Amino acid sequence: MLAFVGLGIRGEESLTLEGLKELQQADEVYAELYTSPLPKLELPNLEKIIGKRVKVLDRREIEEGEELLKASAVKRVVLLVPGDPMIATTHVALRLKAISLGIQTKVVHSSSIISAVAGLTGLQNYKFGRSATLPLDQTSAHPYEVLGENLERGLHTLLFLDVKAEESRYMTANEGIRYLLQLENQRQRGYFTGKRLAVIVARAGGDDCLVRGDRAEKLAEVDFGPPPHALVVPGKLHFLEAEALKTLAGVPPEILAKQESLQVKGLKEELLEEIEKWIEKLEKKVEPLKSRPEMENILAYLQDSEHFRKRGDLVKSFECLIWAWALLHTSRDKLVEG
Amino acid sequence: MLAFVGLGIRGEESLTLEGLKELQQADEVYAELYTSPLPKLELPNLEKIIGKRVKVLDRREIEEGEELLKASAVKRVVLLVPGDPMIATTHVALRLKAISLGIQTKVVHSSSIISAVAGLTGLQNYKFGRSATLPLDQTSAHPYEVLGENLERGLHTLLFLDVKAEESRYMTANEGIRYLLQLENQRQRGYFTGKRLAVIVARAGGDDCLVRGDRAEKLAEVDFGPPPHALVVPGKLHFLEAEALKTLAGVPPEILAKQESLQVKGLKEELLEEIEKWIEKLEKKVEPLKSRPEMENILAYLQDSEHFRKRGDLVKSFECLIWAWALLHTSRDKLVEG
Repeated sequence: MLAFVGLGIRGEESLTLEGLKELQQADEVYAELYTSPLPKLELPNLEKIIGKRVKVLDRREIEEGEELLKASAVKRVVLLVPGDPMIATTHVALRLKAISLGIQTKVVHSSSIISAVAGLTGLQNYKFGRSATLPLDQTSAHPYEVLGENLERGLHTLLFLDVKAEESRYMTANEGIRYLLQLENQRQRGYFTGKRLAVIVARAGGDDCLVRGDRAEKLAEVDFGPPPHALVVPGKLHFLEAEALKTLAGVPPEILAKQESLQVKGLKEELLEEIEKWIEKLEKKVEPLKSRPEMENILAYLQDSEHFRKRGDLVKSFECLIWAWALLHTSRDKLVEG
Repeated sequence: MLAFVGLGIRGEESLTLEGLKELQQADEVYAELYTSPLPKLELPNLEKIIGKRVKVLDRREIEEGEELLKASAVKRVVLLVPGDPMIATTHVALRLKAISLGIQTKVVHSSSIISAVAGLTGLQNYKFGRSATLPLDQTSAHPYEVLGENLERGLHTLLFLDVKAEESRYMTANEGIRYLLQLENQRQRGYFTGKRLAVIVARAGGDDCLVRGDRAEKLAEVDFGPPPHALVVPGKLHFLEAEALKTLAGVPPEILAKQESLQVKGLKEELLEEIEKWIEKLEKKVEPLKSRPEMENILAYLQDSEHFRKRGDLVKSFECLIWAWALLHTSRDKLVEG
């Protein structure tokens, strides 16, 4: 039997009663602490609470899983993991391996930065788009792209800051912000300029938890203390969210007032706007010429465009409009100028 | 002092040690149980564990908050809430009200369906797009639109099923599926046909937790037992996710093999494909005519298109191509036919 027991975001105090029971009944207790740092965790204290020793495994030992699986095949084993178990791929892989060996498994859930971050900032959970990790080493534009996708839809983004616990390396919020500013500098899409509102959550769940929001360029200069940090980039704000950011994250009201102007236009929105603009332009030109026989083709394109727009096929709708416009300007007996 | 203490997804057993301490120190303990049903919660048992009475408040009493805030102003008060606190807007509003009255507040996090669902299904958390709620009463297409947005980006979707605890009404997974099928019938966008792979999570965190995936039309016929249920619609699957769905959710392998073909094309993808198609078509036509003076304009449009595509401005890039194409077909001395 292998039970994955979540340590939550705080350390031994965010163990659940179910987790505690599981630990008390266990023959062997292992822990992995490399997928997320738990600043509040005190191993001796945890060992005292559960009344047995905890053996901490490193990344290789978890990934290979040999010792764990061997023990689980004959004994009641608990693997303690930071946060809610199974968020890290490596835990899922280990669980599947155990099941394939005929070992019974169990998951005891606990608190996670994923839901905590919504509560701590007051941003509504269902308005978060996908999340991404800002990496310590390799330079990837993926988090920047994810941020852009979310902003285009008015959604908030949770950016995890990379952890290499084996090397005692934890990305700070400041490094995360600089990383994104650098990508903005390269890509120039307006997703993360120095003016962008960002919110830092440091040591979520701890007594010294810090939540602070401001313009990115301002936050980059602040010292948020020890890890772990997380970075949130809000999208469009409901008034209650704006209120919460003022109260819970100390965001200056003048920044919230300017938040609307930092919205990023999505492809769909852009295409719809373009379509409307062209229809208006075309209708003005077409109206006085409607009865002329050369117009038949052009009017047909206009009709098609409307048809496609209604069906939600914006690409075809737009295409028809450009055709109509081009025909107007290039027909043998020039119908319009300019 | 007002502490929001999460009950987690399981009932009194998913209280954390920190939450328990908070409850033991409290002068008064309130609970709200209407934002999510906790099938495993046994109030008398909870009262025994914490050694004091728990007063359950209804929706109106939480929203107005009068009794709670009055007590919190002079005493140590705990409000117990299902899951991780502050996910429901009403808790955030209550916390802001307390702070504005000078009352100290605190949040004790616990497990939430939001992170649990990833672990239980084996789907990776960072591949979930935004979530939405399937409503019991009003008929809204919003969840269908959210699902579509996510599928276009290959992302998974967590759909909450509505709860009206005061009326003992809990949407079942079957009702949720029928709701989405009905929207599909009306909108015909291919987001949720009967063939769509869906995964049900019933009673997440409980000992009788059930995770089951299949085609939507199949799942609609299955009895998943008592609430709460949640519905997950997977997007593109990593091989480890596919493996997990087979093992943890019993998804038949032949459905996983067909999952690729159910992908929904996004606007960006569509536009990029159109641009590529037109460039190829145009280059073939243009090549033999390149040296003719009438081609100057057309070649300029082609160049502009390339320039805009590189900058990521797909709408303008596409527009230039249609212009080039239209000019080729309508120039005074017809350059090409058909």
